[in-house]
Amino acid sequence: MQNLRIPGPTACPPETLAELSRQMINHRGPEFADMQARIMERLKLFFRTQNEVYVMTCSGTGVMEAAIVNTLSPGDRVLSVSIGEFGDRFFDIAEAYGAAVTKLAFEPGTAADPKAVANALAADPGYKAVLVTHNETSSGVTNDINAISKAIRAVNPDILLIVDAISSLGCIPFAADAWDVDVSTTCSQKGFMIPPGLAFISLSPRAWKAYESSTIQKYYFDIGKAKSYAERGQTPFTPAVSLYYGLDLGLEMMDKEGMEQVNARHAAIGDYTRAKARALGLKMLAEGPHASNTVSSILVPEGVNAGELLKILNTDYDTVLASGQGKLTGKIVRIGHMGMTSREDIDAAIDALEKALDRLGYKKPAGVGA
Amino acid sequence: MQNLRIPGPTACPPETLAELSRQMINHRGPEFADMQARIMERLKLFFRTQNEVYVMTCSGTGVMEAAIVNTLSPGDRVLSVSIGEFGDRFFDIAEAYGAAVTKLAFEPGTAADPKAVANALAADPGYKAVLVTHNETSSGVTNDINAISKAIRAVNPDILLIVDAISSLGCIPFAADAWDVDVSTTCSQKGFMIPPGLAFISLSPRAWKAYESSTIQKYYFDIGKAKSYAERGQTPFTPAVSLYYGLDLGLEMMDKEGMEQVNARHAAIGDYTRAKARALGLKMLAEGPHASNTVSSILVPEGVNAGELLKILNTDYDTVLASGQGKLTGKIVRIGHMGMTSREDIDAAIDALEKALDRLGYKKPAGVGA
Repeated sequence: MQNLRIPGPTACPPETLAELSRQMINHRGPEFADMQARIMERLKLFFRTQNEVYVMTCSGTGVMEAAIVNTLSPGDRVLSVSIGEFGDRFFDIAEAYGAAVTKLAFEPGTAADPKAVANALAADPGYKAVLVTHNETSSGVTNDINAISKAIRAVNPDILLIVDAISSLGCIPFAADAWDVDVSTTCSQKGFMIPPGLAFISLSPRAWKAYESSTIQKYYFDIGKAKSYAERGQTPFTPAVSLYYGLDLGLEMMDKEGMEQVNARHAAIGDYTRAKARALGLKMLAEGPHASNTVSSILVPEGVNAGELLKILNTDYDTVLASGQGKLTGKIVRIGHMGMTSREDIDAAIDALEKALDRLGYKKPAGVGA
Repeated sequence: MQNLRIPGPTACPPETLAELSRQMINHRGPEFADMQARIMERLKLFFRTQNEVYVMTCSGTGVMEAAIVNTLSPGDRVLSVSIGEFGDRFFDIAEAYGAAVTKLAFEPGTAADPKAVANALAADPGYKAVLVTHNETSSGVTNDINAISKAIRAVNPDILLIVDAISSLGCIPFAADAWDVDVSTTCSQKGFMIPPGLAFISLSPRAWKAYESSTIQKYYFDIGKAKSYAERGQTPFTPAVSLYYGLDLGLEMMDKEGMEQVNARHAAIGDYTRAKARALGLKMLAEGPHASNTVSSILVPEGVNAGELLKILNTDYDTVLASGQGKLTGKIVRIGHMGMTSREDIDAAIDALEKALDRLGYKKPAGVGA
């Protein structure tokens, strides 16, 4: 069986996959309404919020778009904090919808400095919103959203904090309310142990106020429609019912395990992955508190071609790792360890990596042991 | 087992449902690229087009939005032909994105008159596009897109013809190229025998030219992104992989059966459903060439409460029909017969309907026999 170790879609447990084969129901009937109510209630636990969480049929990028189009207006000044490809994507979306966006970029592999974010806001009182990625999937770096929130609130208490928590929420601790996040977004194929196709979004009262005055044109991603239909147990447009079945069970499993334990499991597998990579003499792109517990970026050793390495892993060892993206192309390979990832999965991936590296002439440095 | 007879999501055959439980693959790897290529090639058969057909992860409404935002600009004059709820939705989307939309409405239960559409265009040479629904799901009426296309081209050969073929394509004959349709849209949960969550869109060269000058803001539904990623075997954003598995098989089954036969099967089951309803002494909202072969609207007999009828069917006979919408609320009930619908499914639904009507005091008129 293929060892799929990319940072989403993640390999799913057989239990949730089995749910996907259930027959259709009326998406405007009572069974769907019951299921949606259960799902929305449990999502609140994992968003750690008292506000409603809405499910949309789309990729993660769809709810990033929803975050922008529901709270901003053309011409709004926006500070887009980017530590990689997905930070850049948030910038691109806001710009596509006519916001006046300024990018505050940090070197790939590093986290955003809360003080630098606060300084940028202090230098320009016109900003209406800050866009930040919680966990940057392209580099394997986790931003400290709580620290960023505190820093920016000290400068401007009313600014909108809009967070892409796509590869973190449901894996790494996230707390929409305690961290005073205004728009929280994530999706199905990361920590929730189901395939892609559903995405989740929650707005604070401050963000709902911004919605009222937002003039960006919207229809499919209009959160007001999601809200009014959810109140009668429906979605505005036909939802991806099969994925709801899977999500319903995935959330039940996560709830049973407990949120703290789900977070602890991801922290443990993150530590384990990094330790196994170091034991091969490999270096991580990120170390310390910002090293991601959902995806690890391993620096490709000098003299090894990243493309060849991934190809050998795929072809000869049925192991799929992810390549670097953007500036990190060719410099790193990434191992996803979100959702249902076991130590055995990581052992097998690292074992395959060791063999493939050996074939490409990589020699473990002297003194490094397992 | 529940007899789900709504006009989408439709009950799916066990074969396609089983595909949905397959494990995830890398959506940026060679297996996905092969599958997407097969799917795109087969979709062209059913769109009857030489142009590429793109798959997006969203509901049908998502590709209706894609049709608008990729071809129009704010202020564009648009004629929106509506014969019901989904015609009205097309109007709403175009208006939400700032087009100057005029509605040409026809009575619920009737089809659009091609001559009236042409007259509206002739009266105002400023129109850039016409929006039309092929099959109006809310009333069970099929418009003659070929006749409408010919009538409008006689007035304005360059006008954009944008068609919602959501509850027709893959069931009722549709021919994007022969009918000179510029934007054709449909989705997964109707004729394609799989659950909702994927939607399909194809643009004519004329529509691609309009895309180049379109200034409506867009990101997730930007068809240019879909095109450039499809060229390298990918989608711009993480796709609903499980539904692609189902679609891959659904299209293979349809291709094997043959497009003509798929269309003939829907025509036969449409005829059969109407005959069975008439045999109970019931009247159809639409008869003749415009009666839909994917969904039939039955007029609720005098003295019978539509809501009660649907509730009894659901609770006591495990049969789910659809209610009327908008102006037709309380006046009709709808039976879906798209995708994998057998005569036995219709027999069971009509049998349940007969029993439920009987309990509500309905008496078959004298002289009506089965």
